[in-house]
Amino acid sequence: MAGSSSEKLDLIVQKIRPFPDFPTAGVVFRDICPLLKDPKALAAVTDLFEEHVRQKHPEVRLIVGLDARGFLFGPLLAQRLGIGFALVRKKGKLPGPTVSVAYSLEYGAAEAEIQEDAVEPGQKVLLIDDLLATGGTLYAACELMKKQQAEVLGCLVVIELKDLKGAERLKSCPVFSLVQY
Amino acid sequence: MAGSSSEKLDLIVQKIRPFPDFPTAGVVFRDICPLLKDPKALAAVTDLFEEHVRQKHPEVRLIVGLDARGFLFGPLLAQRLGIGFALVRKKGKLPGPTVSVAYSLEYGAAEAEIQEDAVEPGQKVLLIDDLLATGGTLYAACELMKKQQAEVLGCLVVIELKDLKGAERLKSCPVFSLVQY
Repeated sequence: MAGSSSEKLDLIVQKIRPFPDFPTAGVVFRDICPLLKDPKALAAVTDLFEEHVRQKHPEVRLIVGLDARGFLFGPLLAQRLGIGFALVRKKGKLPGPTVSVAYSLEYGAAEAEIQEDAVEPGQKVLLIDDLLATGGTLYAACELMKKQQAEVLGCLVVIELKDLKGAERLKSCPVFSLVQY
Repeated sequence: MAGSSSEKLDLIVQKIRPFPDFPTAGVVFRDICPLLKDPKALAAVTDLFEEHVRQKHPEVRLIVGLDARGFLFGPLLAQRLGIGFALVRKKGKLPGPTVSVAYSLEYGAAEAEIQEDAVEPGQKVLLIDDLLATGGTLYAACELMKKQQAEVLGCLVVIELKDLKGAERLKSCPVFSLVQY
């Protein structure tokens, strides 16, 4: 896609739609559906991620995406970089030998899981998701990578909700976000 | 990616891994994780979908992907075609005004949902998912498209489990699958 990085970012910002009080009162949900419906905006997301990774993490060998909205952006970036994509899923979704890590949610708890052979010891990986809020799921994904002795170079997200301080929770792992609120 | 269509298909087949008795006894789970980890195999999937769509459905204006594994393949195809991508999700995940359709699962029931403005009346769409089994979720997605007066040109899946006769259930909607078991 032609255009400068700031033009691309403007387009992305225009295509993120706020919905107050979803899923619960007091929360502003940042909806990425208009972004996915606009092929230029979606190309712009991949362009900016690719530019960042080629500059900062050219040694990356695998993109690891989080269920489910990380799946929307991860394969696009992995294909641009010519590398593979691996899945972190909610417990019970993946067949074969797996490893899992429990994490806390605002209400209750969950477990994130990968296949045992999803990553190799020493493999340099980048995690990707649509949004960083409190960072619970990305933190669990980092722990999974450590368990399998992969090296996490960083986390990529389209949107970062700064007030929720997810980047602090992920402090061992630098966060790159395209849009901040 | 270079190579003939049959070479691409061979590569894809090699990268689908069977797991007997997952998630329940008697079921053979077809695991696409190795396919996603191999950038050539994932490019081959997108190549073959693109080739099919350009030949059979050049009038398509939107790719609609099913939660969660349809998200892995849909944005790649939509970007190749230069068109948008929309999401069908499990009920309660999408903000704003939505429409939903209930459908039955082997055990219990579920609801598929789209945003009211996800598709336009008369818009020509293709549905995409990783796998066609009994066709329950794809059938519900077709019903959602009809509710919103979009025109479903067909369904695309990587894998079709022929014995489960999903294509019969979807008879108003032609199914294109890359690999059949």
